[in-house]
Formats: sequence, C-alpha cells, structure tokens
Amino acid sequence: MARKALSVFVLLMLVVGTVLMVTTETSQAGNGKHKDGYPNNGNVKNVIVMIGDGMGPAFPTAYRYMNDDPSTPKMERTVFDNHLVGSAVTNPEDPEENVTDSAAAATSMAAGIKTYNGAISVDNNRKPVETVLEVAKDNGMATGLVATSQINHATPAAFGTHNESRHNYNEIADDFYDDMINGEHKVDVMLGGGTDYFDREDRDLIDEFESDGYNYVTETEEMVENNNNQLLGLFAPVGLPKAIDREEETPSLNDMTTEALEQLDKEKDGFFLMVEGSQIDWAAHANDSVSAMSEMEDFANAFKKVIEFAKKDKHTQVVLTADHSTGGFSVGRDGDYNFNPEVIEAAKRTPEFMAQEIIDGDDTEDVLEEYVQFRLTEKELSSIEEAAETDDFDTVYSAISDVFNKRAGAGFTTGGHTGVDVPVYAYGPQSEVFSGLIDNTDIANEVFKFLK
Amino acid sequence: MARKALSVFVLLMLVVGTVLMVTTETSQAGNGKHKDGYPNNGNVKNVIVMIGDGMGPAFPTAYRYMNDDPSTPKMERTVFDNHLVGSAVTNPEDPEENVTDSAAAATSMAAGIKTYNGAISVDNNRKPVETVLEVAKDNGMATGLVATSQINHATPAAFGTHNESRHNYNEIADDFYDDMINGEHKVDVMLGGGTDYFDREDRDLIDEFESDGYNYVTETEEMVENNNNQLLGLFAPVGLPKAIDREEETPSLNDMTTEALEQLDKEKDGFFLMVEGSQIDWAAHANDSVSAMSEMEDFANAFKKVIEFAKKDKHTQVVLTADHSTGGFSVGRDGDYNFNPEVIEAAKRTPEFMAQEIIDGDDTEDVLEEYVQFRLTEKELSSIEEAAETDDFDTVYSAISDVFNKRAGAGFTTGGHTGVDVPVYAYGPQSEVFSGLIDNTDIANEVFKFLK
Repeated sequence: MARKALSVFVLLMLVVGTVLMVTTETSQAGNGKHKDGYPNNGNVKNVIVMIGDGMGPAFPTAYRYMNDDPSTPKMERTVFDNHLVGSAVTNPEDPEENVTDSAAAATSMAAGIKTYNGAISVDNNRKPVETVLEVAKDNGMATGLVATSQINHATPAAFGTHNESRHNYNEIADDFYDDMINGEHKVDVMLGGGTDYFDREDRDLIDEFESDGYNYVTETEEMVENNNNQLLGLFAPVGLPKAIDREEETPSLNDMTTEALEQLDKEKDGFFLMVEGSQIDWAAHANDSVSAMSEMEDFANAFKKVIEFAKKDKHTQVVLTADHSTGGFSVGRDGDYNFNPEVIEAAKRTPEFMAQEIIDGDDTEDVLEEYVQFRLTEKELSSIEEAAETDDFDTVYSAISDVFNKRAGAGFTTGGHTGVDVPVYAYGPQSEVFSGLIDNTDIANEVFKFLK
Repeated sequence: MARKALSVFVLLMLVVGTVLMVTTETSQAGNGKHKDGYPNNGNVKNVIVMIGDGMGPAFPTAYRYMNDDPSTPKMERTVFDNHLVGSAVTNPEDPEENVTDSAAAATSMAAGIKTYNGAISVDNNRKPVETVLEVAKDNGMATGLVATSQINHATPAAFGTHNESRHNYNEIADDFYDDMINGEHKVDVMLGGGTDYFDREDRDLIDEFESDGYNYVTETEEMVENNNNQLLGLFAPVGLPKAIDREEETPSLNDMTTEALEQLDKEKDGFFLMVEGSQIDWAAHANDSVSAMSEMEDFANAFKKVIEFAKKDKHTQVVLTADHSTGGFSVGRDGDYNFNPEVIEAAKRTPEFMAQEIIDGDDTEDVLEEYVQFRLTEKELSSIEEAAETDDFDTVYSAISDVFNKRAGAGFTTGGHTGVDVPVYAYGPQSEVFSGLIDNTDIANEVFKFLK
C-alpha cells in the first residue's frame, strides 16, 4: 500500500513539477524575451554607447521616409525602428539655460550627473566626475572612441577627459594623452577628426602617442590594414567631411566602427566603445536637411554593424540615443501634408560643398547642374545667384539649403537645440533597463552597473 | 523502509517545488512586471484608448517643463512620463499625401487599417471597416466616446461611424443614431460638443436619442447628477471652449471622463471607452502655445483619472497616444537655449479669447492688461494694436500668440501636421503589447485581441 501511495505521489509531483516548469517557460516567452528574441538578464561583457548628436525624434522618422519603398503600403522599418525601447529626458542643470548643449548631455551620459552647459565631465563645482570609460579602463577593459567630429569635441571628450569648458580643445586633446589610469592611456582606439589639435606648434600629441606604441593612421586603407590594438586615426583637421562629400581615403562611421570593434574585441576582459554620429547636429544647426540625412545614413550603417557584432557576440550591450534635438527639425512644413525624400536624394553633394565651390569661384548654375538632380526653377536659381553675389559662404549655403528644405518639406525653428525628449534604442542582454522614459543620466548609471 | 523513502521523497519534491516557484517569482519580478509594479498577462475586461490629437513628442516634454518645480535639480515627472512604452508610426496610405490627418489616423487606431486622409473608418475603396468599438458593442460591452471637439469630429467619428469624408458632419451625427448593432445604438455614452449637428432644422437627433432612453445633458451639474447608463452630453455648438476659457457649466475632459467611467463600469461584461484631448491639435494648428498647454493640462488630468480607475479595477487596459503631431512645435526656438513656461502660465485666458474680445470692440490694452500677467513691451503692444486695426480675428489671434510664443521659446514650422512618430503610453495587464515601435494600426489590432 505504501508502495502504491508512493507511485501516486511521484506521479502527482511530476505533474506539479511539469506544470510549474511550463508556467515558468511561458512567462519567459511572453515577457522575459525581447521582441527580436534576444534573451534577457545575460551577462554583459562589452558595452557600446552610440550617440546621434542632435538626433531628436523627427530625424529617425525622416530617415524612415528616406528609406521607404513607395511601391509597398507600409513604410519599411529602419535599423533604429527594430530596437526602440523608449525616450530620454535631456535637460541640463544650468543656472542660465534649461535646454542642454552637447557637453552637459554627454557628461550626463558618460558620468551620470546633471551639470551646466559646456561642462566636460565636471560637475557644477567644476570638479571632475569619473566616467564609464574610465571605470572600464580601470577594470582592465579595452576602450574606444569613434566620432565624425574632431575626437576632442564635446561628446567624445566627455567620455575620456575632464574640462571646465568644451572650448578648451587643446587642453582636452592633451588630457587624452596626459591623464592616465594605472599607467595606461585611457583610450585605446581613437578614430575621428582633429589633426589641428593633436599636431600643434606647441605640442605634437601624435608623436607622443606613437612613442607610446599607438599606430597612427590618416586614411581609410591604412586604418583597415592596422593590426595594433592601440590606434589613433585622425582623418581631417577638424571634423570629417559630411558622408556624401567624403572621398575614398576618408572612412565612413561604419568603417571606423568596424576597425574599432576588431581591435577592442581582442581584449578578453571586454571593452567599452562610444560611437558618435557627430554631424547630424552640425547639419541641423545649419538647417540643412540634405546633410542631416547624409549623416543619419552614416550613423545607421554604423548601428547595423554594431547590432551585427552584438548578435554574434551575445554578451554585448548596445544603447543608442541622442544628446538633444537640433534645429527644431520637422517632417513637413508650411501647411503641406507631405515630406518628399526624393528631393533630398537628388543632392549628390551637400549644400555646404556646393556653396564652397561657388565661393571658390565656380559658376553657380554649373555647380547646381552638376550636383542637383532636379531642375531648379528660375526663382530658386536666382535666389542662390543673389546669395552668391554677397560672396558670403553662410549666405550661399543657406540659400541652397532653403531650396532643398522647401521642396522636401523640412521645417526648422532654430539654429540651436530644442528640449524635446530623445528616442532610446537598445540591443543586448540588459536592454530592459533602458526601457520607458529614462533620464540621460540613467545611460551612465546603468552602464556603471554593468561594469561592476 | 518504504515509509522512510516516501518521507525523503516528499522532502525532495518540496525542495524542488519551492526552487521552481522561487525561480518563477524572481523571473516575474525582473521582467514580468512593469516598472510601476503592475502585473502582466492578466485578463482585460475594459479597454480605454486615449488620443491626444496632434500631441507629437514635443508636447509632453513642454508639459513637463510647465510642471517643473525650479527649486529641485531634476524635472518632476508627469502622469505621461510614468507610463511611456514606445512610439507609433502614423503615415496614412493616401495617393496624394504621406503625412496623416486625424481621420486616417483615427481609422487606423479604430479599425486597424491604413487608409486615405479624410476617411472615417472606410478603406481605400470607401468600404466600411469594423471598429474596436463596434466589436465591443457586438460582444455586449458598454461603449463610450468623450471628446472636447464636437463628438462627430474625425477622431470619435472613426470609432463609432463610417463615412467617406470627415467633412460630412451631419451624416456622421446621423450615423451615431441610425447605424445599430443587435438593435442597439453603438455608443452608450457620448460626451463632447456638437449641438449644431445633433439639433438641426432637418432632424433632431437629440429628441430621437431621448425617445430611445438616453438622458441628454448640456451642463456640468446636470451631467454629474446623471444616473442613466445611456447618456448624450453636448456642451457646445461645435467644440468646447479651451480649458482655461471654460466657465463652470462647461465640463473639463476629466469631468466627462469621470462620468463616462461611472456609467460604463455598470456593465458587468466590461466596456470600451475612447477619450480624446481634441484641441491640442486645434491650438497647434493656430500655432498657439498657450492653448496647446491648456489642452495638455486638461488631457493630463483625464489621464490621471483613468489611471486611478485602472489601478483600482486591475482588469482595465489603458493605451494613450497621439494621431500625429501638429504645428512642428518645438521646445525652444531662434537659437535660444531656453523654454520659459512662466510666460505661458501668465495667460489667464487664451489668445483666441482675448482676440475675440478685441474684435468685439474692447480696448486692446485693457484686454491684455486683464488677461496677461506680464507687462508687454511697447513693441509687443503696438504689434497687437496694429493687428487690431485690421478687424480680422485671425490676424489679432496670431499677433497675440506670437508674443507668447517668442517669449516662451515655442517654435512652429507649419499650420498643418508633421510626420514625426508619436509617443505611446500604456497602463494595465497587457501593456507590453504596445511597447517599442508600433504602427498606429497596432493599437486597434491589439485591442481587437483583448475583445475576442
């Protein structure tokens, strides 16, 4: 009888156990996994933070319009769309301004604190605050910074250096070399622009980095051939040309990101990498929708590469966001219910590039004919010709941009930043922590947790 | 021995069982629950869809600035912030336009299809498509529509009626009465504006609804005293006055929502309710930041009430979003890194209200002195006085709005809509299904699943 009771009991417990296990699995399938099937709660070995400078919510929408196949009823999803998890609040803690600049926002994302506009990872008392990159390096991880601006510009600067002002470009460049952690330079891979600041009359930082074992490269091919895990690549005096203006010798953001990943991934203790699409912001400051979309494409391609890497690696946490929105950019303007991406696609070079050629003496009509794949109206042409007569670069640049903006339906309200919340995207084992509405300081504060 | 084996076995199974249960609970705490502690995967009995018409991403940000306590370093969170889950794509399927209007977007959210601008729950072949409200009614649930526009305006219309054009206001009003489901009118509780369309020379729909057992109310107090579960409340000829212009007899969106919830909740089979903050859009069309924020406050208060109800009820799914963004509204403008909510708060009535008083013959300076709590500069005052000389309402309205917009840092790029993705908020047992980037059709398609 005892034996019979035992059998019944075993059967009963097996049923209960099975039910419990099935319940657990169902629960995980429903909520424990991301929509793309990536499992939650795994270990994070590598962290990649990507920042679209100035990339407020209208930019990824416009980029979707740009990539739409008009022959299908729904808009095709972009690489951003698949990984949206929420938005971030960006306001600084500044006595004079309540809309952030890139320095304060980058400090929030790098060091987890609110601070004043212009601050490079220092607090409101001008005191340096430790960044996620510094903690990563202190932990023996490899570190990298990739940008299309000069590498000592506000965003990358706030991850690797400290300064009371973003405008102290030389001091910031020096800091990359001088301020060491455990006897090592903080950043193993630095790729971007900035020879003007690294190769100066008073100091040759390039030479100094080379003496310490860094490989120094200035062209795409050299960069691709590099095998050194300490790498300084400077591809322009200040910022890189905009993506559609680049020649082969100047790498895309994707090229630089690919190289950075290759070097950083050699470190068995993992890596921290920050990749910035720096000039979405610059384009939007100039109210130039053509350049903004060129830079979005460059940034999107780098994001694709990063997702590809993270998918294979399985222990890489990626988070992508913007520091703020620039230009008050809108998808549609002047009462028209259309955004016309084909107008933007018709530009073979940026309005900036065309303006420079005109300022350099080329015939206005010839320049426009060469680089613009639609026929300008008499009125459009004469507005640019009139601007050309001023011989003022900004006036010509703005006149050309205006033609594109009006035809495309790209609106702008400011040459500065706006306060709108920015989108947040994530991919990796801990993406959940970035979901919903977060503060920009949460980016750093969650990354700090991964690094512990 | 058998007895001993049994005891050991029981002990073992208890341990295994406990471990399994603990694992399950841990998993739920980490991922199975929302950040606000609301459990996932519960049953949905009631569905509340809230639509901030025109409420693109900059509006909730601006509303946060409006509610900020400047004496604290971080911005206080709003009722929206706590429930953000992602964004929605809004483009229509229209041969002529790729930025949506309210009708096409409401059709997507009500019927789960893409269609042309102007369509009221009909597809591109002008064929009616069943809506979530209709399915709810067919299931024996109670149904309600609440708006601050006329109740036959595009958004509520698309939930309860079908028409090839949003502009056929009389036909749409008729449809609310004529088009029945199982011998019953589709909408049990209708609260908003619209006597011009319900009480007409050719037809008295109010009388018809009353004959069929509806209680009809026109003032706040009457509405609050209502005990009838079939209720028609029309509080204005067309749209309600903007929130800060309303007198006591005109209910707030919160008042109407509270009454709707009270009546609908009587139905044991649950209810479907759509609540629209209709005039965020109208304010933004007029590029009037004062009215837009007044309407955001009205909408936020209704959302608070809905969350409160859902928290208590535990089987109510709430989803809140916008149909599109209006005005190209930006938080900051003209190169200034500030948004100044105190300027907007200084308006005691809307610019629309003030313009009407001036057009009606009141002295411009007196009107502004009475309703604006800052001293206008000579230049500002004369810009409005010059506008007043035209005797044109729109010119005066726009001149007053301009003063507020420029001081506040509120930018606009259009009198129409823009294509930017809109924020999505959710609260309730199935909030997860709305997370990440969704299409506006997903709102309906997920709600359809709850109703099955």
